[in-house]
Amino acid sequence: MLQAGLHNSRRASVRITEVSPRDGLQYEPEFVPTLRKISLINALSRTGVTEIEAGSFVSPAAVPQLADSDEVLRAIDRIPGVTYSALVPNERGLERARAAGVDKIAVFTAASDSFTRHNIKATVQESLVRFRPLVAAAKRDGMAVRAYLSTVVFCPYEGRVPPTQVRDVMDRLLDLAVDDISLGETVGRASPTDIRKLLDTVLPHVEPARLSLHFHDTYGMAIANALTAWWDYGITAFDASAGGLGGCPYAPGASGNVATEDLVFALKATGADMPVDERLVAVCAHQLGDAVRHPLNSRLSQLHHRDKPQPAWRE
Amino acid sequence: MLQAGLHNSRRASVRITEVSPRDGLQYEPEFVPTLRKISLINALSRTGVTEIEAGSFVSPAAVPQLADSDEVLRAIDRIPGVTYSALVPNERGLERARAAGVDKIAVFTAASDSFTRHNIKATVQESLVRFRPLVAAAKRDGMAVRAYLSTVVFCPYEGRVPPTQVRDVMDRLLDLAVDDISLGETVGRASPTDIRKLLDTVLPHVEPARLSLHFHDTYGMAIANALTAWWDYGITAFDASAGGLGGCPYAPGASGNVATEDLVFALKATGADMPVDERLVAVCAHQLGDAVRHPLNSRLSQLHHRDKPQPAWRE
Repeated sequence: MLQAGLHNSRRASVRITEVSPRDGLQYEPEFVPTLRKISLINALSRTGVTEIEAGSFVSPAAVPQLADSDEVLRAIDRIPGVTYSALVPNERGLERARAAGVDKIAVFTAASDSFTRHNIKATVQESLVRFRPLVAAAKRDGMAVRAYLSTVVFCPYEGRVPPTQVRDVMDRLLDLAVDDISLGETVGRASPTDIRKLLDTVLPHVEPARLSLHFHDTYGMAIANALTAWWDYGITAFDASAGGLGGCPYAPGASGNVATEDLVFALKATGADMPVDERLVAVCAHQLGDAVRHPLNSRLSQLHHRDKPQPAWRE
Repeated sequence: MLQAGLHNSRRASVRITEVSPRDGLQYEPEFVPTLRKISLINALSRTGVTEIEAGSFVSPAAVPQLADSDEVLRAIDRIPGVTYSALVPNERGLERARAAGVDKIAVFTAASDSFTRHNIKATVQESLVRFRPLVAAAKRDGMAVRAYLSTVVFCPYEGRVPPTQVRDVMDRLLDLAVDDISLGETVGRASPTDIRKLLDTVLPHVEPARLSLHFHDTYGMAIANALTAWWDYGITAFDASAGGLGGCPYAPGASGNVATEDLVFALKATGADMPVDERLVAVCAHQLGDAVRHPLNSRLSQLHHRDKPQPAWRE
């Protein structure tokens, strides 16, 4: 555990990458109309999140839910202080991202070959080779680069993934000079003990400020994991999805991405300084509600749309 | 923080008091038929929980949902190793509890006067005076006594409750020689930081083994709080409700009691040794499902009743 510096990092502001417009809507069965996507992103831009994953430039045939990302990225308001990113799998995607004026591209790999084979038809090693020219070209054009590193504790096909295997892939991503790395706990069944083992293994190789942690709440441990990463390890960046949008691709209807409003509420309640207004985030998710046609997967949203009044006191 | 002894207490088995038959069903809008209650308790008896709060001997007019507790307590199977308790507010209730053969009575107070006034028409002080003869009589008859101490971080009417106020009421309960005390985070919005402050304040006055923590998941922090109490403070007893039964009396439809199956899953995943089978608990809740007529408030239950298969690997 990196005890040194924890006190300071605990006081550093905690940043959120809001992933609902991409990672969220990609897994929603309903196509959300383009104008609703634009409104969602514009509203999210005013909640205090520092980065929004606004779209995806993968093949529209592969992910029809995000086939309109070019249009969305061109039409949104660009709020100063917010970084707008999009997923980019290849040169063709990079061209589209450049044309749409994204600030940052995101590339996607994982710590386990079975997962990358299923998702991007490549081994981990092959994905890293693909990234090399992409990352270099993006940087030449002044775009920042985020790398997703998924299956950091469990792989849905292989089971438990050793932390050293995650660290080795992370090392390769750092060699490519990506700006930040999002470590994804894809299956959502890791516990704080697993997160401690992971961070004990990777933190000696990377500055904590370059990491973002991406938790799924499938088994209800996402908040506990995030609080452990922040409180015990000084991790100050997390990915989250307004309203818990996105669900869990391995169990339809079950919880996937941790809900931004719940995560922000918990971090603030635990003492984190952060500029995000969780009530505004919950409103963004609620406004999208009828377009996704299912109840939102968020404690705060469940609580704030009830007929009985809340307790009278306020802190 | 009680660092000493943590290593050992972490290895001590973690115990669950299953509260769904009382604290759960009391807040369900539907009356659950007597035979369904008996089946629920009999099934819960075989999950590995060590204590089941099986009924309530308050006035049937006040809590019609549990008006059949006499019958339920008499009809259930008594499994060796499981303690069967019931809520008892007064002498009349104690008589009924004795006649029904309960092993243990539970008395109820809180750390804030507004809450006890609303719930038991008494100040905290008055409630403690009421308990004295009750506790003495129960002990004479060979029954154990649990005390509920609610609103240990927030009171729904007064807001934040100082930990010293909780400690003072707990001290009075210890004077009465109750066997164990359940500290209830009634509002469900406390964070791990709040739980640390509470435990730092109360643990110098009580052996951790006499405490049980009772978390509500209203804001999604129950699992994080329980893991903090176990991992950092060596607390080894928790109350929980199968399927998250009970909801939140302050916001209908929102989450109340933490779901036993989720809590057990999280504690085991974090490394706790405990004899409870969370899958059997989820089955108990699922079997009651149609009697309560709403989806269960539990991640595991959401996950296990889906059409898509689970990942193929098993640990």
